[in-house]
Amino acid sequence: MSTLSASRLEITKSTSARKCPPVNELVFGKTFTNHMLTVPWNIESGWGTPKIEAYHPLSLDPSAVVFHYAPCLFEGLKAYRDPKGEIRLFRPDKNMERMNASAHRLALPQFDGDELIKLIKKLLEIDQEWVPSEPGYSLYIRPTLIGTQASLGISQSTEALLFVILSPVGPYYSSVVKPVALEANPDRVRAWPGGSGSSKLGANYAPCILPQMESASKGYQQNLWLYGEEHWLTEVGAMNLFIVLRNDDGLEVVTPPLNGMILPGVTRDSLLSLLRDHVAGKNSLPLPKNIKVSEREIKMGEIVDAANAGRLVEAFGSGTAAVVSPVDRIGYKGSDIKVPVTESGFGEVAEALLNKLKSIQWGHEEHPWSVPISS
Amino acid sequence: MSTLSASRLEITKSTSARKCPPVNELVFGKTFTNHMLTVPWNIESGWGTPKIEAYHPLSLDPSAVVFHYAPCLFEGLKAYRDPKGEIRLFRPDKNMERMNASAHRLALPQFDGDELIKLIKKLLEIDQEWVPSEPGYSLYIRPTLIGTQASLGISQSTEALLFVILSPVGPYYSSVVKPVALEANPDRVRAWPGGSGSSKLGANYAPCILPQMESASKGYQQNLWLYGEEHWLTEVGAMNLFIVLRNDDGLEVVTPPLNGMILPGVTRDSLLSLLRDHVAGKNSLPLPKNIKVSEREIKMGEIVDAANAGRLVEAFGSGTAAVVSPVDRIGYKGSDIKVPVTESGFGEVAEALLNKLKSIQWGHEEHPWSVPISS
Repeated sequence: MSTLSASRLEITKSTSARKCPPVNELVFGKTFTNHMLTVPWNIESGWGTPKIEAYHPLSLDPSAVVFHYAPCLFEGLKAYRDPKGEIRLFRPDKNMERMNASAHRLALPQFDGDELIKLIKKLLEIDQEWVPSEPGYSLYIRPTLIGTQASLGISQSTEALLFVILSPVGPYYSSVVKPVALEANPDRVRAWPGGSGSSKLGANYAPCILPQMESASKGYQQNLWLYGEEHWLTEVGAMNLFIVLRNDDGLEVVTPPLNGMILPGVTRDSLLSLLRDHVAGKNSLPLPKNIKVSEREIKMGEIVDAANAGRLVEAFGSGTAAVVSPVDRIGYKGSDIKVPVTESGFGEVAEALLNKLKSIQWGHEEHPWSVPISS
Repeated sequence: MSTLSASRLEITKSTSARKCPPVNELVFGKTFTNHMLTVPWNIESGWGTPKIEAYHPLSLDPSAVVFHYAPCLFEGLKAYRDPKGEIRLFRPDKNMERMNASAHRLALPQFDGDELIKLIKKLLEIDQEWVPSEPGYSLYIRPTLIGTQASLGISQSTEALLFVILSPVGPYYSSVVKPVALEANPDRVRAWPGGSGSSKLGANYAPCILPQMESASKGYQQNLWLYGEEHWLTEVGAMNLFIVLRNDDGLEVVTPPLNGMILPGVTRDSLLSLLRDHVAGKNSLPLPKNIKVSEREIKMGEIVDAANAGRLVEAFGSGTAAVVSPVDRIGYKGSDIKVPVTESGFGEVAEALLNKLKSIQWGHEEHPWSVPISS
């Protein structure tokens, strides 16, 4: 059984290389670079030859399991161009770890994450001109793993394809931050105990599109996903969720714990670390020192009570695309809970975290999380 | 906006037509006929031209949403060759109804089911030599609908592809029926209130493969899917579930109700109808008349109690592939509940229903459910 090995990489450069379009014309996830990486897998021989070739369509038998039973999973991370022009990744080891956990959950093959990082670095090196240097722009990296066996039997796929495509993307916020309104509808449930909500599976996304459209038709941009009769908060849209409360002894930043229903977001983990380091005096954010950082269950009743008492300070989503996405309104049980935002569109905590994380991601300050592709 | 219309069908016959292999060489879902049907859809122009062409790979952009977010759904039905040699479908209108419900659930396009039935009949006519005449053999029909837009945005797919492929299949049971052992593990949950378990989505299948493999490693062929703290029974493997109990006043056949977590199986519905007609004297099964037919919640505690009291008579799954699949053992909380089976491997109720339904499906008796493709 062969393992995934970057040393076996074969490169065939595109003969019709395109240029990256002007960055102001970019729409998220619709423009792709000149090359892509593919690595096939087979249950008998293991991982095959990694290939970097011209970006090309995938040709699959119509009975391929991915079209029928959804064995598919993905990751999302970005390459950033630092002030010296060097290209950097942000905590790619976390993405590899989660991708392997997702692969296990779908009985798809696991692999050595360090080897895939090497291959991604090589792909980035080849398409390096597509990493924008304009502020706030980056190159979105999409590793994907699909079951490809041509069979209608419902069982472990005996064949799979790992591929990586790259898409230059703009800043989530152009000049003005637009806070989003959420609908908290307990009748639509994203994940549940014993399910697969903590893995980054395609299966967790398609069923969330209709609820999002239904919320949008009522003037809410995203869903606030609740769980159970107590209406526990879990996630927001396709992001993790943070709530800031003002308690008697200072601010509390709350995010739901990794209880099996929550995606272990890399941004979520990074924001928690930044906050904890701030409280411990290991780094400095423009925030008060006495912040309580809580990974704990929080239910809608507590949000309602806090809002009524003037103690609901902020709410925001966290994810790779936007880093943080502030919330100014939550529709729940027929009325709206207002969430304060400052003139900039953020709350104080969200803005401080966004600025700090951007500074690390774009290499304006050195940090072990930020990995130059030349390293 | 164009609707799906069989009148627009374009046919291009394969130039390298293969013959159906000897039926005893068939493995479920691995052999496909010479032709396939495709119909593209676009959010601006609606349904495109239906085409019957040689069976061929699908070529899709690697950013196609189906590979990332799992907008995919399917149906399964069969074509049967009757004693006169004519080809028949079984309740195809039910599959069309459910396929449209699944499409709605994924924000994929809906269509006129009668038109798709016409197209499937045409495809069957062209590949009619692939409908086996050997007893118990049939031609499995797999209509599939996938989102195909090339975009990494998580939203309604602006493009889709409906396709139908055909696979000749053998009888689920060769000569000997092998009852299956189930593991009832409350830690693995297939569906939940507010989720998508009542639609036939790819997303409901891939996450069930690992639990099935885990059960298989312990000697159980399939999962008995439970829900909630009371351990309510929902489905078995990829089939609906029937339990037969002996109450003081006669037999009770129980299947969980369509509560949003249960797939509305065509076989399930057909078995319920056959039983109810039997009780009402409208048809005759070789079973006692005083059977209570119940669509109701049933929990593991009731199964355990019934087994201990000698009142657990049968358990079986129902689905298109096997019609009925008898169960002889349920692993639960560390021990096994034995379920009686007769020498033939079935219970009395399962066997009577299987024989009746097969008789209708293969046209040994006339029934409005069985639809000749020439009609």
